[in-house]
Amino acid sequence: MASPTFGNRTAPRPGGRSARVQEAVHRATRELTAEHGREALTVPMVAARAGVTPSTIYRRWGDLAELLADVSVERMRPDGEPADTGSLRGDLLAWAEQYNEEMSSELGRAMLRDVLSAQSPDARPSCRCADFIALQIGVLLGRAQARGVTTPPVGRVMDTLVAPLLFRLLFTAGPVTLDEIAGWVDASLTTASP
Amino acid sequence: MASPTFGNRTAPRPGGRSARVQEAVHRATRELTAEHGREALTVPMVAARAGVTPSTIYRRWGDLAELLADVSVERMRPDGEPADTGSLRGDLLAWAEQYNEEMSSELGRAMLRDVLSAQSPDARPSCRCADFIALQIGVLLGRAQARGVTTPPVGRVMDTLVAPLLFRLLFTAGPVTLDEIAGWVDASLTTASP
Repeated sequence: MASPTFGNRTAPRPGGRSARVQEAVHRATRELTAEHGREALTVPMVAARAGVTPSTIYRRWGDLAELLADVSVERMRPDGEPADTGSLRGDLLAWAEQYNEEMSSELGRAMLRDVLSAQSPDARPSCRCADFIALQIGVLLGRAQARGVTTPPVGRVMDTLVAPLLFRLLFTAGPVTLDEIAGWVDASLTTASP
Repeated sequence: MASPTFGNRTAPRPGGRSARVQEAVHRATRELTAEHGREALTVPMVAARAGVTPSTIYRRWGDLAELLADVSVERMRPDGEPADTGSLRGDLLAWAEQYNEEMSSELGRAMLRDVLSAQSPDARPSCRCADFIALQIGVLLGRAQARGVTTPPVGRVMDTLVAPLLFRLLFTAGPVTLDEIAGWVDASLTTASP
Protein backbone atom coordinates (compact mmCIF):
# COMPACT_ATOMS: atom_id res chain seq x y z
CA MET A 1 0.00 0.00 0.00
CA ALA A 2 1.08 3.54 -0.66
CA SER A 3 1.64 5.45 2.55
CA PRO A 4 -0.75 8.25 3.50
CA THR A 5 -0.17 11.46 1.57
CA PHE A 6 -1.57 14.08 3.86
CA GLY A 7 0.00 17.49 3.99
CA ASN A 8 -0.22 18.00 0.23
CA ARG A 9 -1.57 21.14 -1.46
CA THR A 10 -5.16 20.09 -0.78
CA ALA A 11 -4.68 20.07 2.99
CA PRO A 12 -3.51 23.60 3.71
CA ARG A 13 -2.62 25.01 7.13
CA PRO A 14 -5.89 25.41 9.05
CA GLY A 15 -7.07 28.99 9.47
CA GLY A 16 -4.83 30.53 6.81
CA ARG A 17 -6.05 32.29 3.69
CA SER A 18 -5.39 29.15 1.69
CA ALA A 19 -7.61 27.13 4.02
CA ARG A 20 -10.39 29.72 3.80
CA VAL A 21 -10.25 29.65 -0.01
CA GLN A 22 -10.39 25.86 -0.02
CA GLU A 23 -13.32 25.82 2.37
CA ALA A 24 -15.26 28.41 0.34
CA VAL A 25 -14.61 26.66 -2.98
CA HIS A 26 -15.47 23.23 -1.58
CA ARG A 27 -18.69 24.57 -0.04
CA ALA A 28 -19.65 26.31 -3.31
CA THR A 29 -19.01 23.10 -5.24
CA ARG A 30 -21.14 21.02 -2.87
CA GLU A 31 -23.98 23.56 -2.89
CA LEU A 32 -24.03 24.04 -6.67
CA THR A 33 -23.84 20.28 -7.29
CA ALA A 34 -26.85 19.80 -5.02
CA GLU A 35 -28.75 22.65 -6.70
CA HIS A 36 -27.98 22.07 -10.38
CA GLY A 37 -26.35 18.65 -10.68
CA ARG A 38 -22.72 18.13 -11.52
CA GLU A 39 -23.26 18.11 -15.27
CA ALA A 40 -24.24 21.79 -15.13
CA LEU A 41 -21.23 22.84 -13.05
CA THR A 42 -18.56 25.17 -14.45
CA VAL A 43 -15.47 26.71 -12.89
CA PRO A 44 -16.81 30.30 -13.32
CA MET A 45 -20.05 29.29 -11.51
CA VAL A 46 -18.11 27.84 -8.59
CA ALA A 47 -15.79 30.86 -8.48
CA ALA A 48 -18.71 33.32 -8.41
CA ARG A 49 -20.42 31.47 -5.57
CA ALA A 50 -17.19 31.12 -3.59
CA GLY A 51 -16.21 34.77 -4.09
CA VAL A 52 -12.89 34.01 -5.77
CA THR A 53 -11.66 34.45 -9.33
CA PRO A 54 -11.79 31.53 -11.77
CA SER A 55 -8.01 31.75 -12.11
CA THR A 56 -7.67 31.06 -8.38
CA ILE A 57 -9.46 27.78 -8.98
CA TYR A 58 -7.52 26.89 -12.13
CA ARG A 59 -4.23 27.69 -10.39
CA ARG A 60 -5.01 25.55 -7.39
CA TRP A 61 -7.00 22.64 -8.81
CA GLY A 62 -6.05 22.56 -12.50
CA ASP A 63 -9.51 21.87 -13.86
CA LEU A 64 -13.08 21.09 -12.85
CA ALA A 65 -12.50 17.32 -12.78
CA GLU A 66 -9.70 17.73 -10.24
CA LEU A 67 -11.80 20.07 -8.12
CA LEU A 68 -14.70 17.60 -8.11
CA ALA A 69 -12.30 14.80 -7.19
CA ASP A 70 -10.84 16.85 -4.34
CA VAL A 71 -14.30 17.65 -2.98
CA SER A 72 -15.33 14.00 -3.22
CA VAL A 73 -12.19 12.77 -1.49
CA GLU A 74 -12.86 15.18 1.39
CA ARG A 75 -16.40 13.83 1.65
CA MET A 76 -14.95 10.33 1.88
CA ARG A 77 -12.65 11.29 4.75
CA PRO A 78 -13.89 9.22 7.71
CA ASP A 79 -15.72 11.12 10.44
CA GLY A 80 -14.11 9.18 13.25
CA GLU A 81 -13.05 5.75 14.44
CA PRO A 82 -14.87 2.81 12.88
CA ALA A 83 -17.39 1.00 15.11
CA ASP A 84 -16.03 -1.29 17.84
CA THR A 85 -18.03 -4.51 17.93
CA GLY A 86 -15.66 -6.39 20.25
CA SER A 87 -14.16 -8.72 17.62
CA LEU A 88 -12.01 -8.19 14.54
CA ARG A 89 -14.40 -10.16 12.34
CA GLY A 90 -17.32 -8.10 13.62
CA ASP A 91 -15.44 -4.84 13.14
CA LEU A 92 -14.47 -5.72 9.55
CA LEU A 93 -18.03 -6.83 8.75
CA ALA A 94 -19.49 -3.62 10.19
CA TRP A 95 -16.99 -1.44 8.35
CA ALA A 96 -17.49 -3.23 5.01
CA GLU A 97 -21.28 -3.25 5.26
CA GLN A 98 -21.37 0.46 6.00
CA TYR A 99 -18.86 1.26 3.26
CA ASN A 100 -20.86 -0.77 0.76
CA GLU A 101 -24.07 0.98 1.79
CA GLU A 102 -22.53 4.43 1.40
CA MET A 103 -20.70 3.75 -1.85
CA SER A 104 -23.51 1.89 -3.62
CA SER A 105 -25.79 4.92 -3.24
CA GLU A 106 -26.21 7.41 -6.07
CA LEU A 107 -23.99 9.90 -4.21
CA GLY A 108 -21.39 7.27 -3.36
CA ARG A 109 -21.09 6.12 -6.98
CA ALA A 110 -20.78 9.74 -8.13
CA MET A 111 -18.00 10.33 -5.58
CA LEU A 112 -16.09 7.25 -6.73
CA ARG A 113 -16.51 8.38 -10.34
CA ASP A 114 -15.18 11.86 -9.49
CA VAL A 115 -12.22 10.42 -7.65
CA LEU A 116 -11.29 8.08 -10.52
CA SER A 117 -11.92 10.61 -13.30
CA ALA A 118 -9.28 13.11 -12.23
CA GLN A 119 -5.95 12.92 -13.99
CA SER A 120 -3.72 14.63 -11.46
CA PRO A 121 -0.52 12.58 -11.49
CA ASP A 122 0.72 13.74 -8.10
CA ALA A 123 -1.29 12.83 -5.00
CA ARG A 124 -3.87 11.06 -7.15
CA PRO A 125 -7.26 11.47 -5.49
CA SER A 126 -7.91 7.73 -5.71
CA CYS A 127 -4.72 7.08 -3.73
CA ARG A 128 -5.87 9.44 -0.98
CA CYS A 129 -9.19 7.59 -0.99
CA ALA A 130 -7.39 4.23 -0.57
CA ASP A 131 -5.23 5.76 2.16
CA PHE A 132 -8.36 6.68 4.15
CA ILE A 133 -9.57 3.10 3.87
CA ALA A 134 -6.18 1.67 4.85
CA LEU A 135 -6.09 3.92 7.91
CA GLN A 136 -9.54 2.74 9.01
CA ILE A 137 -8.59 -0.92 8.48
CA GLY A 138 -5.36 -0.24 10.38
CA VAL A 139 -7.37 1.05 13.35
CA LEU A 140 -9.43 -2.16 13.40
CA LEU A 141 -6.33 -4.36 13.19
CA GLY A 142 -4.55 -2.35 15.88
CA ARG A 143 -7.55 -2.70 18.15
CA ALA A 144 -7.48 -6.50 17.72
CA GLN A 145 -3.71 -6.62 18.28
CA ALA A 146 -4.18 -4.71 21.54
CA ARG A 147 -6.47 -7.57 22.62
CA GLY A 148 -3.68 -10.04 21.81
CA VAL A 149 -5.21 -11.24 18.53
CA THR A 150 -2.92 -12.16 15.63
CA THR A 151 -4.04 -10.21 12.58
CA PRO A 152 -3.27 -10.18 8.87
CA PRO A 153 -1.33 -7.17 7.53
CA VAL A 154 -3.36 -4.23 6.22
CA GLY A 155 -2.36 -5.03 2.64
CA ARG A 156 -3.92 -8.46 2.83
CA VAL A 157 -7.25 -7.02 4.00
CA MET A 158 -7.07 -4.43 1.22
CA ASP A 159 -6.51 -7.11 -1.45
CA THR A 160 -8.98 -9.67 -0.06
CA LEU A 161 -11.85 -7.55 1.27
CA VAL A 162 -11.58 -3.96 0.02
CA ALA A 163 -10.51 -4.84 -3.55
CA PRO A 164 -13.41 -7.16 -4.42
CA LEU A 165 -15.88 -4.78 -2.77
CA LEU A 166 -14.66 -1.81 -4.82
CA PHE A 167 -14.32 -3.94 -7.96
CA ARG A 168 -17.95 -5.01 -7.66
CA LEU A 169 -19.14 -1.44 -6.98
CA LEU A 170 -17.24 -0.10 -9.99
CA PHE A 171 -17.47 -2.88 -12.56
CA THR A 172 -20.73 -4.74 -12.02
CA ALA A 173 -24.34 -3.68 -12.04
CA GLY A 174 -25.79 -5.93 -9.34
CA PRO A 175 -25.72 -5.27 -5.59
CA VAL A 176 -23.12 -6.81 -3.28
CA THR A 177 -24.74 -9.18 -0.77
CA LEU A 178 -23.95 -9.44 2.92
CA ASP A 179 -22.98 -13.09 2.35
CA GLU A 180 -20.38 -12.01 -0.17
CA ILE A 181 -18.99 -9.43 2.24
CA ALA A 182 -18.80 -12.07 4.99
CA GLY A 183 -16.96 -14.41 2.59
CA TRP A 184 -14.35 -11.73 1.82
CA VAL A 185 -13.95 -10.89 5.50
CA ASP A 186 -13.37 -14.56 6.32
CA ALA A 187 -10.92 -14.95 3.44
CA SER A 188 -8.95 -11.91 4.64
CA LEU A 189 -8.70 -13.48 8.12
CA THR A 190 -7.58 -16.88 6.80
CA THR A 191 -3.84 -17.39 6.71
CA ALA A 192 -2.70 -17.41 3.10
CA SER A 193 -1.94 -20.92 1.88
CA PRO A 194 1.76 -21.71 1.49
CA MET B 1 -20.92 -11.55 -11.85
CA ALA B 2 -23.17 -9.74 -14.26
CA SER B 3 -23.73 -11.69 -17.43
CA PRO B 4 -22.31 -10.38 -20.70
CA THR B 5 -24.29 -7.50 -22.17
CA PHE B 6 -23.51 -7.69 -25.83
CA GLY B 7 -26.12 -6.78 -28.40
CA ASN B 8 -26.74 -3.35 -26.92
CA ARG B 9 -26.85 -0.10 -28.89
CA THR B 10 -23.07 0.05 -29.09
CA ALA B 11 -22.81 -3.23 -30.99
CA PRO B 12 -24.93 -2.58 -34.09
CA ARG B 13 -25.61 -5.03 -36.91
CA PRO B 14 -22.37 -5.34 -38.88
CA GLY B 15 -22.41 -3.66 -42.28
CA GLY B 16 -25.49 -1.49 -41.70
CA ARG B 17 -25.53 2.30 -41.72
CA SER B 18 -25.43 2.27 -37.95
CA ALA B 19 -22.25 0.17 -37.97
CA ARG B 20 -20.62 2.47 -40.52
CA VAL B 21 -21.42 5.53 -38.39
CA GLN B 22 -20.01 3.84 -35.31
CA GLU B 23 -16.85 2.84 -37.12
CA ALA B 24 -16.33 6.36 -38.52
CA VAL B 25 -16.95 8.05 -35.17
CA HIS B 26 -14.72 5.62 -33.28
CA ARG B 27 -11.93 6.06 -35.82
CA ALA B 28 -12.23 9.86 -35.68
CA THR B 29 -12.09 9.75 -31.88
CA ARG B 30 -8.99 7.55 -31.86
CA GLU B 31 -7.23 9.71 -34.48
CA LEU B 32 -8.06 13.04 -32.84
CA THR B 33 -7.08 11.74 -29.40
CA ALA B 34 -3.71 10.67 -30.81
CA GLU B 35 -3.24 14.01 -32.60
CA HIS B 36 -4.46 16.50 -29.99
CA GLY B 37 -4.85 14.62 -26.70
CA ARG B 38 -8.19 13.87 -25.15
CA GLU B 39 -8.38 17.12 -23.21
CA ALA B 40 -8.70 19.03 -26.48
CA LEU B 41 -11.43 16.78 -27.88
CA THR B 42 -14.94 18.13 -28.51
CA VAL B 43 -18.02 16.52 -30.04
CA PRO B 44 -18.09 18.97 -33.01
CA MET B 45 -14.42 18.11 -33.77
CA VAL B 46 -15.17 14.40 -33.80
CA ALA B 47 -18.32 14.91 -35.88
CA ALA B 48 -16.46 16.97 -38.50
CA ARG B 49 -13.71 14.35 -38.84
CA ALA B 50 -16.21 11.48 -39.00
CA GLY B 51 -18.44 13.25 -41.52
CA VAL B 52 -21.56 13.16 -39.36
CA THR B 53 -23.51 15.89 -37.56
CA PRO B 54 -22.85 16.58 -33.89
CA SER B 55 -26.48 15.68 -33.15
CA THR B 56 -25.86 12.19 -34.54
CA ILE B 57 -23.20 11.78 -31.87
CA TYR B 58 -25.28 13.30 -29.07
CA ARG B 59 -28.26 11.11 -30.03
CA ARG B 60 -26.26 7.94 -30.05
CA TRP B 61 -23.68 8.43 -27.30
CA GLY B 62 -25.23 11.10 -25.06
CA ASP B 63 -22.05 13.07 -24.43
CA LEU B 64 -18.31 13.09 -25.00
CA ALA B 65 -17.58 11.09 -21.84
CA GLU B 66 -19.81 8.26 -23.01
CA LEU B 67 -18.26 8.30 -26.47
CA LEU B 68 -14.75 8.14 -25.00
CA ALA B 69 -15.84 5.29 -22.75
CA ASP B 70 -17.35 3.39 -25.69
CA VAL B 71 -14.17 3.80 -27.74
CA SER B 72 -12.03 2.67 -24.80
CA VAL B 73 -14.21 -0.38 -24.14
CA GLU B 74 -13.86 -1.40 -27.78
CA ARG B 75 -10.08 -1.04 -27.49
CA MET B 76 -10.19 -3.35 -24.48
CA ARG B 77 -12.11 -6.04 -26.38
CA PRO B 78 -9.71 -9.02 -26.54
CA ASP B 79 -8.16 -9.76 -29.92
CA GLY B 80 -8.45 -13.50 -29.55
CA GLU B 81 -8.08 -16.42 -27.18
CA PRO B 82 -5.71 -15.90 -24.27
CA ALA B 83 -2.36 -17.73 -24.46
CA ASP B 84 -2.34 -21.49 -23.82
CA THR B 85 0.61 -22.38 -21.61
CA GLY B 86 -0.51 -25.94 -20.87
CA SER B 87 -1.61 -25.37 -17.26
CA LEU B 88 -4.35 -23.32 -15.62
CA ARG B 89 -1.88 -21.64 -13.26
CA GLY B 90 0.37 -20.75 -16.18
CA ASP B 91 -2.57 -19.47 -18.22
CA LEU B 92 -3.82 -17.26 -15.39
CA LEU B 93 -0.31 -15.94 -14.72
CA ALA B 94 0.22 -15.15 -18.39
CA TRP B 95 -3.17 -13.45 -18.71
CA ALA B 96 -2.73 -11.36 -15.54
CA GLU B 97 0.84 -10.32 -16.37
CA GLN B 98 -0.19 -9.18 -19.82
CA TYR B 99 -3.29 -7.39 -18.53
CA ASN B 100 -1.22 -5.62 -15.88
CA GLU B 101 1.34 -4.58 -18.47
CA GLU B 102 -1.30 -3.17 -20.81
CA MET B 103 -3.37 -1.43 -18.15
CA SER B 104 -0.49 0.10 -16.20
CA SER B 105 0.68 1.95 -19.32
CA GLU B 106 -0.31 5.57 -19.90
CA LEU B 107 -2.84 4.47 -22.53
CA GLY B 108 -4.20 1.69 -20.34
CA ARG B 109 -4.77 4.02 -17.40
CA ALA B 110 -6.48 6.54 -19.68
CA MET B 111 -8.78 3.79 -21.02
CA LEU B 112 -9.72 2.66 -17.51
CA ARG B 113 -10.39 6.28 -16.56
CA ASP B 114 -12.62 6.76 -19.63
CA VAL B 115 -14.53 3.61 -18.90
CA LEU B 116 -15.14 4.55 -15.25
CA SER B 117 -15.94 8.22 -15.94
CA ALA B 118 -19.02 7.61 -18.08
CA GLN B 119 -22.34 7.85 -16.34
CA SER B 120 -24.53 5.81 -18.70
CA PRO B 121 -26.83 3.85 -16.41
CA ASP B 122 -27.70 1.14 -18.96
CA ALA B 123 -24.94 -1.14 -20.22
CA ARG B 124 -22.37 0.70 -18.12
CA PRO B 125 -19.06 0.65 -19.99
CA SER B 126 -17.25 -0.68 -16.93
CA CYS B 127 -19.61 -3.69 -16.87
CA ARG B 128 -18.82 -4.46 -20.51
CA CYS B 129 -15.14 -4.21 -19.62
CA ALA B 130 -15.59 -6.69 -16.74
CA ASP B 131 -17.59 -8.96 -19.08
CA PHE B 132 -14.65 -9.11 -21.49
CA ILE B 133 -12.37 -10.14 -18.63
CA ALA B 134 -14.84 -12.74 -17.34
CA LEU B 135 -15.13 -14.24 -20.83
CA GLN B 136 -11.33 -14.54 -21.10
CA ILE B 137 -11.08 -16.11 -17.65
CA GLY B 138 -13.93 -18.44 -18.63
CA VAL B 139 -11.96 -19.60 -21.66
CA LEU B 140 -8.97 -20.45 -19.44
CA LEU B 141 -11.13 -22.33 -16.95
CA GLY B 142 -12.97 -24.20 -19.72
CA ARG B 143 -9.63 -25.22 -21.23
CA ALA B 144 -8.51 -26.67 -17.86
CA GLN B 145 -11.85 -28.42 -17.36
CA ALA B 146 -11.46 -30.06 -20.78
CA ARG B 147 -8.19 -31.51 -19.46
CA GLY B 148 -10.08 -32.91 -16.47
CA VAL B 149 -8.88 -30.28 -14.00
CA THR B 150 -11.22 -29.10 -11.24
CA THR B 151 -11.40 -25.31 -11.40
CA PRO B 152 -12.82 -22.51 -9.27
CA PRO B 153 -15.85 -20.66 -10.65
CA VAL B 154 -15.21 -17.53 -12.74
CA GLY B 155 -16.54 -15.31 -9.94
CA ARG B 156 -13.90 -16.54 -7.53
CA VAL B 157 -11.10 -15.72 -9.97
CA MET B 158 -12.66 -12.30 -10.56
CA ASP B 159 -12.77 -11.54 -6.81
CA THR B 160 -9.37 -13.04 -5.94
CA LEU B 161 -7.18 -12.19 -8.92
CA VAL B 162 -8.86 -9.58 -11.14
CA ALA B 163 -10.23 -7.42 -8.29
CA PRO B 164 -6.93 -6.83 -6.46
CA LEU B 165 -5.14 -6.26 -9.76
CA LEU B 166 -7.63 -3.59 -10.86
CA PHE B 167 -7.82 -2.13 -7.35
CA ARG B 168 -4.07 -1.65 -7.32
CA LEU B 169 -4.04 -0.16 -10.81
CA LEU B 170 -6.80 2.31 -9.95
CA PHE B 171 -6.13 3.21 -6.32
CA THR B 172 -2.41 2.97 -5.69
CA ALA B 173 0.58 4.69 -7.20
CA GLY B 174 3.18 1.92 -7.10
CA PRO B 175 3.59 -0.89 -9.65
CA VAL B 176 2.13 -4.37 -9.17
CA THR B 177 4.88 -6.98 -8.88
CA LEU B 178 4.95 -10.40 -10.52
CA ASP B 179 5.17 -11.95 -7.04
CA GLU B 180 1.93 -10.24 -6.07
CA ILE B 181 0.22 -11.47 -9.23
CA ALA B 182 1.45 -15.03 -8.52
CA GLY B 183 0.08 -14.75 -4.98
CA TRP B 184 -3.37 -13.76 -6.25
CA VAL B 185 -3.34 -16.52 -8.87
CA ASP B 186 -2.49 -19.10 -6.20
CA ALA B 187 -5.17 -17.73 -3.86
CA SER B 188 -7.77 -17.96 -6.63
CA LEU B 189 -6.84 -21.62 -7.18
CA THR B 190 -6.97 -22.52 -3.47
CA THR B 191 -10.26 -23.91 -2.29
CA ALA B 192 -11.94 -21.34 -0.07
CA SER B 193 -11.65 -22.25 3.59
CA PRO B 194 -14.85 -23.57 5.17
